Amino acid sequence: MSDLQRPVFFVSDGTGITAEMLGHSLLSQFEGVPIEQIVVPFVDSVEKAHQCRAQIDEARRRTGSRPVVFTTLVNADVRGILSGADCLFLDFFESFIDPLEAEFGTRSSHTIGRSHSAGDRKEYQERIESINYALSHDDGLTDRDLESADVILVGVSRSGKTPTCLYLALQFGVKAANYPLIPEDFERDRLPGAVSAFVPKLYGLTIVPERLSEIRNERRPGSKYASIDNCRNEIARAEDLMRRHGIRMMNSTTRSIEEIATKIIQDVRISRRVY
Amino acid sequence: MSDLQRPVFFVSDGTGITAEMLGHSLLSQFEGVPIEQIVVPFVDSVEKAHQCRAQIDEARRRTGSRPVVFTTLVNADVRGILSGADCLFLDFFESFIDPLEAEFGTRSSHTIGRSHSAGDRKEYQERIESINYALSHDDGLTDRDLESADVILVGVSRSGKTPTCLYLALQFGVKAANYPLIPEDFERDRLPGAVSAFVPKLYGLTIVPERLSEIRNERRPGSKYASIDNCRNEIARAEDLMRRHGIRMMNSTTRSIEEIATKIIQDVRISRRVY
Repeated sequence: MSDLQRPVFFVSDGTGITAEMLGHSLLSQFEGVPIEQIVVPFVDSVEKAHQCRAQIDEARRRTGSRPVVFTTLVNADVRGILSGADCLFLDFFESFIDPLEAEFGTRSSHTIGRSHSAGDRKEYQERIESINYALSHDDGLTDRDLESADVILVGVSRSGKTPTCLYLALQFGVKAANYPLIPEDFERDRLPGAVSAFVPKLYGLTIVPERLSEIRNERRPGSKYASIDNCRNEIARAEDLMRRHGIRMMNSTTRSIEEIATKIIQDVRISRRVY
Repeated sequence: MSDLQRPVFFVSDGTGITAEMLGHSLLSQFEGVPIEQIVVPFVDSVEKAHQCRAQIDEARRRTGSRPVVFTTLVNADVRGILSGADCLFLDFFESFIDPLEAEFGTRSSHTIGRSHSAGDRKEYQERIESINYALSHDDGLTDRDLESADVILVGVSRSGKTPTCLYLALQFGVKAANYPLIPEDFERDRLPGAVSAFVPKLYGLTIVPERLSEIRNERRPGSKYASIDNCRNEIARAEDLMRRHGIRMMNSTTRSIEEIATKIIQDVRISRRVY
């Protein structure tokens, strides 16, 4: 056994994002195995397949360890060139296309680059509109057109609202605004005026004070804003305010952006515009 | 055969995003088959498995058509409950974990929710920093700290710069700024001053005039800005300017956000911070 990292390739005739995502979800089950990741997108010709094959062969020689190759390849010629390498070749496309053809009683089109292509113009437009909406309604930038929001995230500064709104827009075509809860709101003991008319659309993000203090200290080291006492106080008052208004709330501390976004869609029962 | 839509489920003990993505890439090969998509995330207990099973059974009865179930389930009990339904059950996890265990010579941890979890704090932070960078450097908002950019996208208004920068940040942890090329730049026949010092980091997006006019007309119907003549002129001059400065250029017209972002990473040889 070599103690070098195991080379792991993600190869696709498209972006490779699907191959990568599935590969990651499998590899996350083998935490102790050191790996070196190589993404090779747009392998859509025999020529590019040979180039990619050379990369795999080179990694085999260099590390002395058999590469793992995750692929979603539609073209059988391209697949043939790569699968001939000395590697563990895991092809997602080939494994599942046959049972689907049998189930649907029809042949697949074997067209490359269908996934993540801009084919559906309506979906594309919904995505772009949602992104523009998230940008113009970030951090309480405007009170206009809040009635078009699918959801309005509220929470203290740095609780994860902005990345979540952007992800909701990009991945799901969901229109998400976000509005900060700030010390002035706690003093007045009221929700910000702009969002108080939209309580059913509100969704709260909260976070443990220690983590919030850590995040804020990266931006403004040693500030009162970042101090653990201030974070504790802001969070307690924000949670109290949200609870009294019956606003759903999620603790974002240990969740990824993907998990937060997915749970919001599930909780609020938003209709996604993009699949 | 029923002419109702075929129910397609994406079931996961996590977000379901991986199951969905692979499912979509497979289903895109069967364009003629009408489907109804149901995403069921966070199926991480026997109880939730039974609820999900009831949904699958209900869809079977309602449509008279056998559901297709794409899953990435780690837990064998949960999987057992679902796979017993009258459906085409395609499990990505089970199909690939055995060959990986054999290859690595180690058992997988069978831990749920590993994919898309916030486990890697460094990666999470890189992502957040990149998102903040994209937001503060959108549309030429600031000239500061452009030297930290991995790439600076340039192009006429509405050529796809903003969604691409956000996607680069969210998906890959890449720091991407963007700067518009506007009529004043064409009159002066020069790159905007702020970016002219960073030509090696510049990457141009261009688009066919007809599509640009369409997009601009949605925002400002009937304006000179959106007119086909103006779009033709702006694009010709922008392309000319970029060409003379040796700036790499991509036509975004028929490409998805994912494709544009992936191709930029490949062309510029950016080191991703997030996998």
